Amino acid sequence: MEDTYGKLISSLAKTNDKRIVLLVMDGLGDCDNAGKGTALWQAKTPNFDALAARSALGLLTPVATGVTPGSGPGHLGLFGYDPLVFQVGRGVLSALGVEFALTKRDVAARLNFCTLDAAGNITDRRAGRIPDSENRRVLALIRQKLSPPPGVELFWETEAEHRAVLVLRGDGLDDNIGDTDPQAVGVPPLRPDRPPHDASRTALMVADILDQVKGILASEKKANMILGRGFAKAPDWPSFEERFQLKPAAVAGYPMYRGVARLVGMPVVSQPTTAADVCAEAAKAMKDHTFVFAHFKYTDKTGEDGDLPAKIQRIEEMDAAIPALLKAKPDVLIVTGDHSTPPSMKSHSWHPVPVLMHAPHLRGGDGKRFDEVSCRAGQIGTIPSKEIIPLAMAHADKLEKFGA
Amino acid sequence: MEDTYGKLISSLAKTNDKRIVLLVMDGLGDCDNAGKGTALWQAKTPNFDALAARSALGLLTPVATGVTPGSGPGHLGLFGYDPLVFQVGRGVLSALGVEFALTKRDVAARLNFCTLDAAGNITDRRAGRIPDSENRRVLALIRQKLSPPPGVELFWETEAEHRAVLVLRGDGLDDNIGDTDPQAVGVPPLRPDRPPHDASRTALMVADILDQVKGILASEKKANMILGRGFAKAPDWPSFEERFQLKPAAVAGYPMYRGVARLVGMPVVSQPTTAADVCAEAAKAMKDHTFVFAHFKYTDKTGEDGDLPAKIQRIEEMDAAIPALLKAKPDVLIVTGDHSTPPSMKSHSWHPVPVLMHAPHLRGGDGKRFDEVSCRAGQIGTIPSKEIIPLAMAHADKLEKFGA
Repeated sequence: MEDTYGKLISSLAKTNDKRIVLLVMDGLGDCDNAGKGTALWQAKTPNFDALAARSALGLLTPVATGVTPGSGPGHLGLFGYDPLVFQVGRGVLSALGVEFALTKRDVAARLNFCTLDAAGNITDRRAGRIPDSENRRVLALIRQKLSPPPGVELFWETEAEHRAVLVLRGDGLDDNIGDTDPQAVGVPPLRPDRPPHDASRTALMVADILDQVKGILASEKKANMILGRGFAKAPDWPSFEERFQLKPAAVAGYPMYRGVARLVGMPVVSQPTTAADVCAEAAKAMKDHTFVFAHFKYTDKTGEDGDLPAKIQRIEEMDAAIPALLKAKPDVLIVTGDHSTPPSMKSHSWHPVPVLMHAPHLRGGDGKRFDEVSCRAGQIGTIPSKEIIPLAMAHADKLEKFGA
Repeated sequence: MEDTYGKLISSLAKTNDKRIVLLVMDGLGDCDNAGKGTALWQAKTPNFDALAARSALGLLTPVATGVTPGSGPGHLGLFGYDPLVFQVGRGVLSALGVEFALTKRDVAARLNFCTLDAAGNITDRRAGRIPDSENRRVLALIRQKLSPPPGVELFWETEAEHRAVLVLRGDGLDDNIGDTDPQAVGVPPLRPDRPPHDASRTALMVADILDQVKGILASEKKANMILGRGFAKAPDWPSFEERFQLKPAAVAGYPMYRGVARLVGMPVVSQPTTAADVCAEAAKAMKDHTFVFAHFKYTDKTGEDGDLPAKIQRIEEMDAAIPALLKAKPDVLIVTGDHSTPPSMKSHSWHPVPVLMHAPHLRGGDGKRFDEVSCRAGQIGTIPSKEIIPLAMAHADKLEKFGA
C-alpha cells in the first residue's frame, strides 16, 4: 500500500490562521435498526438541521466497502492517515487504550491471564475473567518478583478483567515475537521465540520473562500464567502537524481516543465527556490551535449497548450543545463519526458514516436534515474518511494549487 | 496491480451458516436504446419492484470507467477477483468456452482456421467462416495425422465456424509463445518462436505442430492452415472457497459461465437455462452451500441480438421466477449482471450494471423500482463489481472487524 494521496496533500499543505474543527460523534452512523430507522433520522436536531441547510453533506467510508473498523483505524482515517497504510499492532492499540505513553524504544503486547493445569496445558484462556482487583494484585506480584532483562525496563498495566498490557522499553528492541496464545485450550502456551521468530533477540527476552512469570504465579489458582499477543513497536509516523501544517489539539474524555491522537503527535488539551463540555472545550482549544479534534463517546456506547432511544438522546444532547461551538466561529466545522454503531447490531459496522461540513466555498447547502438519507445525496458524495481533512483544508485555503 | 482489497477481505473472512445467493442476469444493464428506454425501465417487474422497496440498490462498475468487459472479466469481478489483477489469457477463455477442463500442466490457445494462397500468404483470416461440420472434419484430420511432441498430449476442440481451441498438456510447458495471426492478409502467418519467444521450449514445439498442420491441410481448399493466439497457461489462483471462506456452488446452463466458475474452484451443481429452472435449482443448491452463483443467459443473448422486446420479456420471466428463490430465504440475495448489453448496441457495453441486494442491516429499502434510475440513487452507490460479495459478506456477518 502506498500513501499516495497523503503525500500529495502533505506536499501542498500551507499554514494560515484559519481554524478547522473535527467533531467526532463516535459510532454516529446507523442502519435502519430492523425497520425502526436510524438514530439520526429519529433524533430531533433543529440545530444540526439548520446547519445542514448551510453545509455540505456526504458519507465517509472508514476503511473499505464492507469492512468494519475498530476505533484505531476509524480515527486514523479521519485524521488523514489511510488505515490500510498506517496499521497499528494489537499491542500498541492496547497500550493506547490504557493511555500508556509509548516511546520509540518500546514494544507493547496485549496480555490475557489464563489458567494452566498441572501438566502445563491451558484450561481457561481468560482465567475465569478475574475481577480487575485480582488483575492488579497479580500484576503487582509480577512487578515485585520478576528480574527484567539487562538494559530493559518493563511496564505491566491492568486493562480490565483478565486483560493487561506489557511494555518492554530498551535500545534496539524488535517486535519479531510470536503470539503465545494458541487460541485453544488443552495445549500449552506457544513459545514466543519459535521459528520464524527464533532469530529475534527480543523474542528470547520475552521467553525468559514468561518463564519467570510461570514460576511467580505457580501457586495462583486461576491466573497462574499469561498469554501474549500482538507484540508491536510504536509506529514511527509523520506527525499530524508536519503532515498537514496544522497545529493540532485533542479534546477527548476517553483514553483510547487520547491515545490515537497522541499516536499522530496531537497533544491532548482537555478531557471532557458530556456534549456541552466537549463543545465548550473545543471552542476554547480553537484559541491557540488551527485544528481541534473533539471526541464524543456516548453515541457509540449507546449503540454498543443496543439502546436506540439512548443513542437518539445523545445525538439530541450534542444538537443542543453545538451552538456554543458555532459561536466560536470555526472556519470549517466537520461533524461525523469514526464508524457506524447500529443499536440493532450492538457493534461497530461497515456502513458509511454521515458527515456534515460547514465551510466557505460550498455549492450551496445540501439538506434540511442531517441524517443518512440526506447525506447520501449530498455534494461531498461517498469518499474515504482520509479525504475529509484535506477537503476541509481546501475550504480553509490551506492547500497550494497542484501544478502551474 | 495489487490485490490489496481482495487480500484484506480474505484476511477478515470467517465462516457461518448464512447463505449468500448471487443471481447474474447476463448483460442486464442497458443504455436508453436510442430513446426507447432501458429494458429494466420498460419491463413489468412487480416482484423485483416489491423487493427493491426492501433492498439496497446501486450500480456496479465491472472493470473501470468506460471499459467494456468480456464475460470472463465480468464474472471474475462479481466473484470478487479484480479483473485487472486476475487476468486470463485468450486461450484459457476459449478453453472455458468449450468447457475444456484445464489442468495446471496445460497451455491453451485460440485457433482460427484461415486460407493461404500458393505463396503461403493469408487470403482469408477466417477461412470463409466454414461451417461447424467442416471445422470438426478438419480437426479430426489433424488429430489423426499429427505426431505430438514427445511427452506432450494435444487436444483439438471445435468452438464454432472457423474458431477452435488447442490445448497442450505436459510437464514444464510455458506460455511464452507468439501469436501467429498477423491480423492482416497478404502476408504469411507469424512464427510462434520469433523473438522474444525464441528461447521458449514450448514455442518451438508449437512451431513444429503448425508446420505439421500446414502439411496435413495442404490439399484443403478453404481451411488450409490455422492461426493461433492468446497462448496461456491455466492460472493458479486462490480458490473462491479459501479466499472468502464460503462453500460455493455454480448453477449455470452455458459452458462459458461454468468454465469461469471452475476457474475459481466453484463446482457446477446444475445446468438449468430457463428463468424458472435457474431459480429453482439455485434454491436447491442453497441446501448444502453457503454461496450460490446462479446464471441466466438470455438477457445478454437478446441484447446481442438487438431485440429489446425480447430482452424485456426475459427480464419479466425472471421476475416471475424470483419468488421461488426468495422462498428458500437466502440471508443475502444479490441480483445483478456481469456487464450491460444494450440492444441498440448489439454488444457488451461499459455502462455500470444495476444491482439489488436484499440483506439484513440495510438503511431501509431504496426504491419502488429495480431499474437504472433507482439504482443510481441507491445506498450502495456506484462501486466496483469486486466489492459486492464482500459487502454481502458484511451483511451476513462473515467478516471480522479490522483493527481494535
